[in-house]
Amino acid sequence: MERRIVVEKLEQTPKEDQQIELVERKAIGHPDSIADGLSETVSRSLSRMYMEKYGKILHHNTDETQIVGGQAHAEFGGGLVLEPIYILLVGRAVTRVGNDRLPYRTVALGAARKYLQKNFASLDVEVDVSLDCRISQGSEDLRGLYETSEDLSNDTSFGVGYAPYSETERIVLDTANYINGQLKAEFPAFGEDVKVMGARDTDDINLTIAVAMVDRHVADADEYQNLVSTMKEKAHDFATKYTDRNINVYVNTADDPSKDLYYLTVTGLSMENGDDGSVGRGNRSNGLITPGRPMSMEASAGKNPVTHVGKLYNLLSTRIANDIIEGTGGDIKEAYVRLLSQIGSPVSHPFVADAQLIPAPGVDVNKYNSDVTAIFEDHLDNIARLKNDILADKVTVF
Amino acid sequence: MERRIVVEKLEQTPKEDQQIELVERKAIGHPDSIADGLSETVSRSLSRMYMEKYGKILHHNTDETQIVGGQAHAEFGGGLVLEPIYILLVGRAVTRVGNDRLPYRTVALGAARKYLQKNFASLDVEVDVSLDCRISQGSEDLRGLYETSEDLSNDTSFGVGYAPYSETERIVLDTANYINGQLKAEFPAFGEDVKVMGARDTDDINLTIAVAMVDRHVADADEYQNLVSTMKEKAHDFATKYTDRNINVYVNTADDPSKDLYYLTVTGLSMENGDDGSVGRGNRSNGLITPGRPMSMEASAGKNPVTHVGKLYNLLSTRIANDIIEGTGGDIKEAYVRLLSQIGSPVSHPFVADAQLIPAPGVDVNKYNSDVTAIFEDHLDNIARLKNDILADKVTVF
Amino acid sequence: MERRIVVEKLEQTPKEDQQIELVERKAIGHPDSIADGLSETVSRSLSRMYMEKYGKILHHNTDETQIVGGQAHAEFGGGLVLEPIYILLVGRAVTRVGNDRLPYRTVALGAARKYLQKNFASLDVEVDVSLDCRISQGSEDLRGLYETSEDLSNDTSFGVGYAPYSETERIVLDTANYINGQLKAEFPAFGEDVKVMGARDTDDINLTIAVAMVDRHVADADEYQNLVSTMKEKAHDFATKYTDRNINVYVNTADDPSKDLYYLTVTGLSMENGDDGSVGRGNRSNGLITPGRPMSMEASAGKNPVTHVGKLYNLLSTRIANDIIEGTGGDIKEAYVRLLSQIGSPVSHPFVADAQLIPAPGVDVNKYNSDVTAIFEDHLDNIARLKNDILADKVTVF
Amino acid sequence: MERRIVVEKLEQTPKEDQQIELVERKAIGHPDSIADGLSETVSRSLSRMYMEKYGKILHHNTDETQIVGGQAHAEFGGGLVLEPIYILLVGRAVTRVGNDRLPYRTVALGAARKYLQKNFASLDVEVDVSLDCRISQGSEDLRGLYETSEDLSNDTSFGVGYAPYSETERIVLDTANYINGQLKAEFPAFGEDVKVMGARDTDDINLTIAVAMVDRHVADADEYQNLVSTMKEKAHDFATKYTDRNINVYVNTADDPSKDLYYLTVTGLSMENGDDGSVGRGNRSNGLITPGRPMSMEASAGKNPVTHVGKLYNLLSTRIANDIIEGTGGDIKEAYVRLLSQIGSPVSHPFVADAQLIPAPGVDVNKYNSDVTAIFEDHLDNIARLKNDILADKVTVF
Repeated sequence: MERRIVVEKLEQTPKEDQQIELVERKAIGHPDSIADGLSETVSRSLSRMYMEKYGKILHHNTDETQIVGGQAHAEFGGGLVLEPIYILLVGRAVTRVGNDRLPYRTVALGAARKYLQKNFASLDVEVDVSLDCRISQGSEDLRGLYETSEDLSNDTSFGVGYAPYSETERIVLDTANYINGQLKAEFPAFGEDVKVMGARDTDDINLTIAVAMVDRHVADADEYQNLVSTMKEKAHDFATKYTDRNINVYVNTADDPSKDLYYLTVTGLSMENGDDGSVGRGNRSNGLITPGRPMSMEASAGKNPVTHVGKLYNLLSTRIANDIIEGTGGDIKEAYVRLLSQIGSPVSHPFVADAQLIPAPGVDVNKYNSDVTAIFEDHLDNIARLKNDILADKVTVF
Repeated sequence: MERRIVVEKLEQTPKEDQQIELVERKAIGHPDSIADGLSETVSRSLSRMYMEKYGKILHHNTDETQIVGGQAHAEFGGGLVLEPIYILLVGRAVTRVGNDRLPYRTVALGAARKYLQKNFASLDVEVDVSLDCRISQGSEDLRGLYETSEDLSNDTSFGVGYAPYSETERIVLDTANYINGQLKAEFPAFGEDVKVMGARDTDDINLTIAVAMVDRHVADADEYQNLVSTMKEKAHDFATKYTDRNINVYVNTADDPSKDLYYLTVTGLSMENGDDGSVGRGNRSNGLITPGRPMSMEASAGKNPVTHVGKLYNLLSTRIANDIIEGTGGDIKEAYVRLLSQIGSPVSHPFVADAQLIPAPGVDVNKYNSDVTAIFEDHLDNIARLKNDILADKVTVF
Repeated sequence: MERRIVVEKLEQTPKEDQQIELVERKAIGHPDSIADGLSETVSRSLSRMYMEKYGKILHHNTDETQIVGGQAHAEFGGGLVLEPIYILLVGRAVTRVGNDRLPYRTVALGAARKYLQKNFASLDVEVDVSLDCRISQGSEDLRGLYETSEDLSNDTSFGVGYAPYSETERIVLDTANYINGQLKAEFPAFGEDVKVMGARDTDDINLTIAVAMVDRHVADADEYQNLVSTMKEKAHDFATKYTDRNINVYVNTADDPSKDLYYLTVTGLSMENGDDGSVGRGNRSNGLITPGRPMSMEASAGKNPVTHVGKLYNLLSTRIANDIIEGTGGDIKEAYVRLLSQIGSPVSHPFVADAQLIPAPGVDVNKYNSDVTAIFEDHLDNIARLKNDILADKVTVF
Repeated sequence: MERRIVVEKLEQTPKEDQQIELVERKAIGHPDSIADGLSETVSRSLSRMYMEKYGKILHHNTDETQIVGGQAHAEFGGGLVLEPIYILLVGRAVTRVGNDRLPYRTVALGAARKYLQKNFASLDVEVDVSLDCRISQGSEDLRGLYETSEDLSNDTSFGVGYAPYSETERIVLDTANYINGQLKAEFPAFGEDVKVMGARDTDDINLTIAVAMVDRHVADADEYQNLVSTMKEKAHDFATKYTDRNINVYVNTADDPSKDLYYLTVTGLSMENGDDGSVGRGNRSNGLITPGRPMSMEASAGKNPVTHVGKLYNLLSTRIANDIIEGTGGDIKEAYVRLLSQIGSPVSHPFVADAQLIPAPGVDVNKYNSDVTAIFEDHLDNIARLKNDILADKVTVF
């Protein structure tokens, strides 16, 4: 079956030359990211269970998790969670094969609990969280679709990707990860719930950072202010290495010391006190929210990595775009890739496969037509690579 | 307080001249749209309750609703829902004012039930749905923010909008609404769960339509096939009026009569049988999913219309873009608008306000600088208009 | 298979001659009775569904329903329910027969909703109640047990019964039903949540009645007091017809007008405001709580009427006791009957079947041995009669 | 305020002389007992929290817990829990004092989880259980009642108690505890879910024991049969020490090796596979279900130990009865005690307080009138002792 792959030139001001650029990352402890993380970890655990027992991944989609925020009373020196966070795991899975009934819910619950314990240092999962699970059997028709020899798209939907990251994008992504990683290790007062908003105005990059402080590690308002200053400096120094532009950092701008208003939490997570979260509301599969870039609304987290084009095509588009940039030695400034499926057709054969390329001045896009086509063919022929990388935890999806 | 409003020229191939264009609409009965609709109706009902009692809208955000699909057995002539759909309303609200305790949960539940009854003709809300509510009191700090004289942004987030719709966008949007409206009235067999995917390839517009058929109105496979043909013709005729391009319509492409596989439902809604749904996963506030356009990840549905920039700025950006197009008599081909808030600052004063304009050939964008700025100022000065239009049900948000 | 039936004389002061006697009835609107009523109506609806489809009642037990009280603000003239009552239906049922999947949850939900609508005049089921259902498939072993040709006991448990009612018991039972029935019809202000506690001290019968008033039907404290007086008079007049003893009636004794403390409700049901309820916590299968009589802890409500001895044996014991009293023309003053099953044995063959008889003075119990044995045999041989009467709604179980 | 205390002679065949006697104990791992245990541990934890912060126990009732059984697949050598058990904690508590908001839900959840971990050796609480909590604020009126200087009854209800245990009662109680304790320690294959049904027929005491075996500790059917034989012998030897009567022991009578039907579980608890449980459905406060004895339907577990007569009066009645028996040197064979409250009156002043005494032959009950009255007065005057003993974990309630 031949594929129709379109390569077109895009006339567009490249990102770096646009005056205003907005980029956001919700770090790992943001309620929406927690929902993403839980959905994905549940899907991977189910996938591994199916692989172990049956040598293939059976149908499932666990791409819905609802987090209902708790109630907490934070205070300098250490406060209390008053009402636990309620987390509902939702989704569909094969629950029975022949006479075998599968431990789909206990596997899901165990994976979710482990994920929370591993990632959130100040959350006492045993008392701060109530975990519930309404994952159940999927529609029989959809499951029927699944058991064919070739993997067929489970839906009519599309994925999009692009490369490379702009400078501001790279800064926002890396800064958020730096705060969650190295800075968190050094300063236990910084919670995992961090949001970095980057707004570039020509050559000023403004980073607005919200970071939930962990109350037991902050003695008083003075120490809090010191931590805010530390965060400003550290983030500024970190970001400055990436750019010649001017970096301005704002931290916890809703604080108001005159009203004793600080971004203080017991667990380092705003979901402890009324912040709800759900899947697919935050970062796209490349880790960012980029309103000036093509985005898909499909949540990648929690979808099965075999037939769910909403997951596969987003990740694959980004891989294809990256390969295009890498393979064209500076001749292509930006690559935008789109893949559209049609329900019931093989995932390896999209209904539409398309690259939009912004060339460097003087470059004729046409000269790369066959190279770009080859990159598409390679990724689509070997779409199973992506599944394997996901199972090997080599791929992040939010 | 002066505002910084940026107007810049955007070099970009206009939408209509790009080769490939993808546009999707999840109609009113899609699980994600149902979640959106419930969240928004709950927010409006709470807003009205607050207005009635206190003359202003008090803090709330009900922008999370989790739909857990049921189980159903559809069959020609009429089947059965076996396990009800479980719907969990989530969110935050002011639950008490002084000694007044407010009926926030019964108002929410009542509004949600009424919405389902009104919009979904074949759903027996009394037995097919289990409605639960975990809306509770918000964080006290956030509520503190709220009670100031001027409305302050509740978050650092952005909204984006553009105008005008492309031809394909207009066709997708109107066709979906045509199916939900006029066609549904004429053919009760067409359920409300409809998805229209438009993929334009140069001058071919391919519409892939999935429509859940209501089993009691379909006697057998022959009648089903007739209905599919009817849908194809009607949609084709309808769309053709909008364009000189070639329209191809595909309907329920996952059907496989050889395996007795049809898109048949008891209620006209796929959530009856394992399809889950949540808020903010579907259409953006302009009714579409458009990966080739700037999009915000913020759900508009369910957010309060006073301080929640994630709602206000998306709607406002689109209004501003529309006004720009209307006010420039063809000189501007496309307008892209972005508004970014900073938590704690007045909603009427965005941190960034920016228009990117694609001019018609030969037009100098600068000549419209002051006109565009005036449009921004007008909408920001009168941001309360938007709130009032929402309460008057003059605005759709998904 | 022969049965071992024991008939023994009991030396005991007959009830009427004891000095102190305590008897209680929780009327139909008490939270525990509502839980009972819902469980039983669900069981009967499932039984009818199974009968219709398969000609026999398949395994189920829906004898657990949890009512989580709401929050309400009652006030003279009419108040509001603020947070809905949450009701969770729990239990086990056959959910699938061969390839037939059964609508067990929608049947349960529909039956429950209908029951609430029919029985509680001031409850707006649509907004005051959130109904959820976690009924699911039973243990496979238990279901295995069930599908044999003869009905085998599903548990080792016992039932007890006695006859006749004492005077105080009859008064408590009938007065509660009179208030729920005739009085409620005449005075809509009387809610269905009524508790009648009878305490007889020699020849004084004290009836302490708690009745939830429906606020919209009570203009003010004066009208409330009039209603209390009315209740006192009506109940007194009603009870007096049954006895020569002295009747004292106390109504809503926790009221304290000096603190504006009244038993006022929006719905006539205390579950609207924090009173929880569950199955098997209230009346025994004869409609009463009688600490001075043998009682079984087995909830009768919601148990299947085929194999569940916890239901069958309680009802059967009472029928046997009644027949003994009727068949012995005054020679036996009181009859106490016990039936004990052993799991896995036929329900028609109890492990222990025993009658304890208090004879009238001068009567030799032995002369009735064979009559009493015959009554046992008849009821056990024809145990299916009981099932049929339950399905025909001729039997109350709480 | 003087108390009216009635002492009366009861003419009745003493228990030991009756021909048939039925006695049951649901051991600690029975679903109903687990519900009781959770409710009580939650109440005690809340009580301690209130004591610590405010020096007194504030209003709460957590006497409702719903256990929804999971799904499991047991097999010799070790099986799997497939779907977790869902446990819903329900109740009312003071959630806020002035501006202090209390961690009532996290305290409850923590206490519940700890209880499960401590008591059930083969239950993996992290993955086999989903714990949810809907405890919330009580009715304001009831809380008003509570904050007076003297503790007032929260309800019109009664408690009953008796002494001494009959031989069969003592055997059933101690055998169940022996299995849960010493035998469990020796044989890890015996689960905590044990039910002992004692049926005495003159001088034969039949003990029917159901014990859930833990699959990972049972290699095959042979080992299972050996364990059943061991249980029979051990229980027989244990019980024989208590009596000269004949002891017959039956174990797991529903087993059917010809159908591979065994009472095998993964966790030692039948709630893993479809057995639901709730509070107040099992043992009375003296640890037994005794249909031939006066019983109260009030659940003792989970009720607050200050104003809830449904708890206090059951425990107190038993203490009073024990003191009567101990204080009368064999002259009184059996003592039955009843206490009835009236809502709004002090708990120390019951509306009815009554002892029924079965004297030894030739003993005049009247000679003990003043002694018995004094015992009542002592226990009622010092009712706070009971509360303190409960908080010190010196009292069992089921």
